Amino acid sequence: MAQAQRIKPRAQDFSEWYNDVIMQAELADYSPVRGCMVIRPLGYRIWELMQRALDDMIKAAGHQNAYFPLFIPMSFLAKEAEHVEGFAKEVALVTHTRLIATGKTGAGAVAVDPSSALEEPLVVRPTSETIIYAMFAKWIHSYRDLPLLLNQWCNVVRWELRTRLFLRTTEFLWQEGHTAHATEAEAEAEARLILGLYRRFAEEWMAMPVLTGVKTESEKFAGALRTFAIEALMQDNKALQAGTSHNLGQNFAKVFDVKYQTAAGDLAHVWNTSWGVTTRLIGGLIMTHSDDNGLVAPPRLAPIQVVIVPIYKSDDERHAVLQAADQVRGDLEKAGLRVKLDGRSELKPGAKYFEWEARGVPLRLEIGPRDVAAGQVTMARRTGGKAPVRLDSLAATVSEALAEMQAALLQAARDRREQHSIRGVTKQQFIDFMKAQGGFAYGGFCGSAECEAEIKDATAATIRVLPDPEFRSAEAPKTCMWCGKPSVAEAVWAQAY
Amino acid sequence: MAQAQRIKPRAQDFSEWYNDVIMQAELADYSPVRGCMVIRPLGYRIWELMQRALDDMIKAAGHQNAYFPLFIPMSFLAKEAEHVEGFAKEVALVTHTRLIATGKTGAGAVAVDPSSALEEPLVVRPTSETIIYAMFAKWIHSYRDLPLLLNQWCNVVRWELRTRLFLRTTEFLWQEGHTAHATEAEAEAEARLILGLYRRFAEEWMAMPVLTGVKTESEKFAGALRTFAIEALMQDNKALQAGTSHNLGQNFAKVFDVKYQTAAGDLAHVWNTSWGVTTRLIGGLIMTHSDDNGLVAPPRLAPIQVVIVPIYKSDDERHAVLQAADQVRGDLEKAGLRVKLDGRSELKPGAKYFEWEARGVPLRLEIGPRDVAAGQVTMARRTGGKAPVRLDSLAATVSEALAEMQAALLQAARDRREQHSIRGVTKQQFIDFMKAQGGFAYGGFCGSAECEAEIKDATAATIRVLPDPEFRSAEAPKTCMWCGKPSVAEAVWAQAY
Repeated sequence: MAQAQRIKPRAQDFSEWYNDVIMQAELADYSPVRGCMVIRPLGYRIWELMQRALDDMIKAAGHQNAYFPLFIPMSFLAKEAEHVEGFAKEVALVTHTRLIATGKTGAGAVAVDPSSALEEPLVVRPTSETIIYAMFAKWIHSYRDLPLLLNQWCNVVRWELRTRLFLRTTEFLWQEGHTAHATEAEAEAEARLILGLYRRFAEEWMAMPVLTGVKTESEKFAGALRTFAIEALMQDNKALQAGTSHNLGQNFAKVFDVKYQTAAGDLAHVWNTSWGVTTRLIGGLIMTHSDDNGLVAPPRLAPIQVVIVPIYKSDDERHAVLQAADQVRGDLEKAGLRVKLDGRSELKPGAKYFEWEARGVPLRLEIGPRDVAAGQVTMARRTGGKAPVRLDSLAATVSEALAEMQAALLQAARDRREQHSIRGVTKQQFIDFMKAQGGFAYGGFCGSAECEAEIKDATAATIRVLPDPEFRSAEAPKTCMWCGKPSVAEAVWAQAY
Repeated sequence: MAQAQRIKPRAQDFSEWYNDVIMQAELADYSPVRGCMVIRPLGYRIWELMQRALDDMIKAAGHQNAYFPLFIPMSFLAKEAEHVEGFAKEVALVTHTRLIATGKTGAGAVAVDPSSALEEPLVVRPTSETIIYAMFAKWIHSYRDLPLLLNQWCNVVRWELRTRLFLRTTEFLWQEGHTAHATEAEAEAEARLILGLYRRFAEEWMAMPVLTGVKTESEKFAGALRTFAIEALMQDNKALQAGTSHNLGQNFAKVFDVKYQTAAGDLAHVWNTSWGVTTRLIGGLIMTHSDDNGLVAPPRLAPIQVVIVPIYKSDDERHAVLQAADQVRGDLEKAGLRVKLDGRSELKPGAKYFEWEARGVPLRLEIGPRDVAAGQVTMARRTGGKAPVRLDSLAATVSEALAEMQAALLQAARDRREQHSIRGVTKQQFIDFMKAQGGFAYGGFCGSAECEAEIKDATAATIRVLPDPEFRSAEAPKTCMWCGKPSVAEAVWAQAY
């Protein structure tokens, strides 16, 4: 167990606070490999809970999981022009397959065997469109084979120069869905369906409100026709792109020759979609809810939902209290809750509170001799508030409290986001807003990549999405907030991770 | 959907039969990357069911999941001498991180950017002892941090020259457990505990009986003190090493300096274990149970446990039969079963039977108009036998049938193994046995690596395990069956995958 350390307050240095929360809660750690992180058990458990929930949703929508190779022949990546351009500068390349002894001992004892060079280097997948659609070409023959709806959970590698735990790492974990459809309309509907699914997951499980919408040409995925995204606002008022869903059109189908015979007997290229969310979501969860005491985990994704801390002085007290605490644990587990009884004798209750707070456990139940005598426990919420609860209705009270906290976290995050959003901005308001606190700025957009680039240079803000109708301002903006030309769409800008 | 093809009978060519079963059931496919396979939805679903069951067992035994980097610095792998020697000739090496355009188009459009060479090449993990124990050194300080019991589910890469779907692929999926303990006895107990867990999983879930025991020095894991294994016998009488559990001693702890402060205040190195099972298990499942009609899946791991095939001629019949079939599907799903209603109108029932047989579905329910009228369905077992079942007791009857089939598959595999085992062999019997049908041969072993090597040269058989007491012959052999010197242990030989 790491020694208890102070967490730098958010107000002083958000970035240090973020790292402190992760290290203090033991969610992850730096590894000896540049840019690669180790996901420690608490962080990985959150990922498992996310996976379980998302996987159920993805399967309920008719998709099946599969697994495709880690390696992609270099020439495959090169087949789609935009795609290779997007990834060429950040790929890990496997070029050799053997080590030889150098005769030395220790760190320099081996070297790459030059005689083991591969004929064609292999790219460690940065994303799997190319290898997957090469397989689709083999499997899809007729309209009866469509739609083909696959998903895989795996690791991918992008050689990032600046990395941050969970948010941007050289290797990360994700799911990537890949589908093929008979028509453009079906592909568009699929990309939209998944966007809705991601939104539901972010809001219902992570308690993280998101905007949905479409990306501009300059922000879309390399090789896509259109990219949809969910975007969340972190506590430092920077946006986090939390998931993307791409309508790939027929770009990859043409390059990999994925064709099917229509009902009428013609040959036609399929329409593809791809979509993914990553371990970055854990970073989003942390930056949405946590505070200066450490992690705050939304109850539905909390690895431990309830921690029970027994309080006693004498051995007699200890016996009675531990017995009651164990009974409570059993009852709550029977109710389907994730419970931990912290029976460590070498730590005082206060030290345990401190530790479980840092680890984001939503509810703490304190049980002392007086509680046992009174048939109650004291229930403390991670987000504040403490009250006695009767043992005879404990499971119900705890479940209600967790549901309330889940809802309150979403509401608080939504309120915060709205407090840090401005609508109908003028150019000067925009500049001031981005210079001061930042957040989501809604304004008119002329549609030109030049305006986007100028805005980015001047303010570091980018268009996060052209928002879906639900998120648009009551009145559509008439002019581009930057250049004053007619607006083609309302846009939402923010500085972003 | 692939066209229905003949599966080569086992008796004619076991190896072709194996590939045919996989391709026909669409469990996996060859990929464009040498030695890497694609695991298709049906195969991956088996893996998911295996993962769920094993993961529950691993967690119930106190382990937590985590995730460590895909890449290992070359120098780390080199630190443990036996370890690097074991893996040096089969590692994928990442040496560069950028592609550059060559000006051409198509397949030759990019090349490795020579200016992107890494200072230190990275090894794509063939196994993760080195990177994980480097982290353990950072996390373990005191005896209170022990035991540390971690596991990860991930992909690994070993550059195999000869590959076979599921059994030996360049990339494969596995779980690798890694633990640290205060004493040698605890590490030994852990390695043994996991061996028992693997055996339980193989027998209770896969219906695949296994021998347990310890490997000889020449067959142990590179870097281990002792390797324990579970070994199964396939239908072609070749052995399959289905899981291994290693007591690593202090080999890695010394190299990576993993020390802890004892309760007495001294510093001591920890004792490690590591253990894993892989997607090779799917190959084992196939080769244990399947027949000339295709896959036979043990019910507990069958992606679809029951397929319902409606039979009708007129539209009136169709309506009534589909309604009844859908009711059956709902009832069985409510009972927790994995059910598929095959309502395709373009295929005749016989074609559906053929397809679901190839895909290993344990039970088929046929429902025709007469069945509807009589309040029954016809239940056909994948392993043979067909009988009417009353609808009012269907869920119970189906569950019982699945449980019976699960038990019968294990018993049949056990009987087959015993029929192909000989005990107390002499040298000549051994040679004849290995030349003829093959199987598990039990005999005395002098303990010398020279005998092992000679036997392997002469018969292609290796010692699978020095079996645990439960599997040993009633009378301990007195002499080595090969050289005639005194026997130090009974051994089990077989030709192996």
